[in-house]
Amino acid sequence: MSSSVYVTGVGMTKFARMPDRSFEEMGREAVRAALKDANIERSAVQEVFCGSALTGRSMGQRVLRDFGMTGLPITNVENACASGSTAVREAATAIRAGRCDVALVLGIDQLSRLGGGTIPGVETDIDPNLGMVMPAVYAMRARRYMHEYGMTREDLAEVAVKAHAAGKHNPYAQFRNEVTVEDVLASRMIADPFTLMMCCPTGDGAAAAILMSPQAARVRGADKIRIVGSSLQSGIYKTGHRDMVHSELTKRTAKLAYEEAGIGPEDVDIAEMHDAFTIAELMYYEALGFCAGGDAVSLLRSGRTRITGDICVNPSGGLLCRGHPVGATGLAQICESVWQLRGDAGPRQVDKPRVALTHCTGGGVSGLDHGSCAVNILVT
Amino acid sequence: MSSSVYVTGVGMTKFARMPDRSFEEMGREAVRAALKDANIERSAVQEVFCGSALTGRSMGQRVLRDFGMTGLPITNVENACASGSTAVREAATAIRAGRCDVALVLGIDQLSRLGGGTIPGVETDIDPNLGMVMPAVYAMRARRYMHEYGMTREDLAEVAVKAHAAGKHNPYAQFRNEVTVEDVLASRMIADPFTLMMCCPTGDGAAAAILMSPQAARVRGADKIRIVGSSLQSGIYKTGHRDMVHSELTKRTAKLAYEEAGIGPEDVDIAEMHDAFTIAELMYYEALGFCAGGDAVSLLRSGRTRITGDICVNPSGGLLCRGHPVGATGLAQICESVWQLRGDAGPRQVDKPRVALTHCTGGGVSGLDHGSCAVNILVT
Repeated sequence: MSSSVYVTGVGMTKFARMPDRSFEEMGREAVRAALKDANIERSAVQEVFCGSALTGRSMGQRVLRDFGMTGLPITNVENACASGSTAVREAATAIRAGRCDVALVLGIDQLSRLGGGTIPGVETDIDPNLGMVMPAVYAMRARRYMHEYGMTREDLAEVAVKAHAAGKHNPYAQFRNEVTVEDVLASRMIADPFTLMMCCPTGDGAAAAILMSPQAARVRGADKIRIVGSSLQSGIYKTGHRDMVHSELTKRTAKLAYEEAGIGPEDVDIAEMHDAFTIAELMYYEALGFCAGGDAVSLLRSGRTRITGDICVNPSGGLLCRGHPVGATGLAQICESVWQLRGDAGPRQVDKPRVALTHCTGGGVSGLDHGSCAVNILVT
Repeated sequence: MSSSVYVTGVGMTKFARMPDRSFEEMGREAVRAALKDANIERSAVQEVFCGSALTGRSMGQRVLRDFGMTGLPITNVENACASGSTAVREAATAIRAGRCDVALVLGIDQLSRLGGGTIPGVETDIDPNLGMVMPAVYAMRARRYMHEYGMTREDLAEVAVKAHAAGKHNPYAQFRNEVTVEDVLASRMIADPFTLMMCCPTGDGAAAAILMSPQAARVRGADKIRIVGSSLQSGIYKTGHRDMVHSELTKRTAKLAYEEAGIGPEDVDIAEMHDAFTIAELMYYEALGFCAGGDAVSLLRSGRTRITGDICVNPSGGLLCRGHPVGATGLAQICESVWQLRGDAGPRQVDKPRVALTHCTGGGVSGLDHGSCAVNILVT
């Protein structure tokens, strides 16, 4: 797939606990913002792609009915934490195949009403039923990483401190407060070594993007930011020794996206990555190729992944601070990437980024590394 | 989208109430059958698309994990009754865009364990909460059709009789019995004018297809049956007078598929259509263009839609007799189309069909005609 797909508008709700709002209403707020940002009418949209893990049947149809956007082809996709990113990939492919020129991509979830942050799933999900819910899974990874590479609790806390230092400038973030290593360590214990602030919060929200073919973007003078790589992979089942601290899935998915984009990790200026727990960000530094295996703590300590650094990770505040309404996260990452690439990110603006990478992974299914991982690469 | 996509293998489970089986196991049975039919190894599959309305998160990942098909890009899609057909369309588009050459498409649902045949949905689903569940919706359409066009209860029963006359020969059908108009009318009343046998049953099952690019199909000598049209649309919200007996949604969706295929309704030899209730088949005769508005009963009485007729409708037995495990139905329709186009349908074989149309519609969302409608056209 060589031809590019342009992202010409983005928009999102604030992420927060909003049990008193309907998810449909949140979805419409995000869609309205994305249409306005793209400066197009509702009638310009030709196809709709929706990602959600929890909202249930016919999500897109529900959201758009009361918005007057009926009659369109609507495709609802689900891939757990990668639902939104998967929707982006399907939309980009539909445009590349010539099926449409202007697509709306929407991600929504509402954990405050529809379910929590663990993976409940079906009766046959043996691992979570035995207690291996997500905080436990990542806690074991963190323990192993401490054992292997001498990482400390303070390092784990520092990831959250960094997330808040950027996210406090993000008007859409669930949290806007600065925190210290002491604050993080003093927060309630969740799954040793994770305290509360080392885990992403339960929250709600929606985010959207308008994707266009080169022709459609050009005619609107909106051919600025392109998706040049978009990959999706699922986990591999392994018996025998399991490497807990190196994510084979993220590494494999990123490799495909880099190849498609014709770039390498050294070209990435900003990365919105799946820091569901603080250890996740460190693991994914390595899996995305930003440093060698075991060097994540050094990279963190170097300050290079802060908003002032040359590989800024999670300028939005990431899942830890901006929040993680599952299906909305992939689109929120696209929003942040576009704002950063445009130079519109205000006080959290990174210095002239050219290449942004988004990364979502999740949906653990018993015995798999993870269910789904999706990586998108955007350039200006 | 001009280049064709080939269907080179199909397979399905028997449709039945199977509360003692897992949906994952049913899915694997269908996948195994489709791979065998396509005469390919599991390793030949490059992408997977799964349609389901009820199985919840990461369905494809769950099914394939224990089948050794891990590590692939898996995209789970949901569009209520059109979930399976939507998955077919996404797979076909991915192939056309050059994203892959060999895709597995899978549809599964298990109503006996995961939910019933009504549309429960969310709190804001006003219509079903007021009693407008699917049997009631279609019963009102039937009543109106009787009023407008003089259709009788016997005509409604005749659709079920025709479905069983074909489906009794289908080894995968939920029912294999012949029924008479008297049997149908004597069965338990569900929603006047529908008796039990005028409603599709609650059931479980899975169906799968292997789709290939022209190159991949040609190298295997499997370039026989092509998808030449694939459309998806959603309902339009209308205030004021609502036409209950003519499906604007199906008409609009079919028009797009016919245009893409470059054919008209007069070219269709067999149609697998969404006869969730007997009135549905009659309404969709008209919406798919097989007869003019109000002429459906005449068409039924003419015998032209039987397996011996020139526009055979539902040789598989349709939803009424073969069954309707929601997400599996779109793929079961592809299975039947392929068997018929190949001449492999045994005692229910239609005389040398060249063009097959599949039609799924459903997912009513308050005030919409229907949530989703998908039409695929296959030719040999």
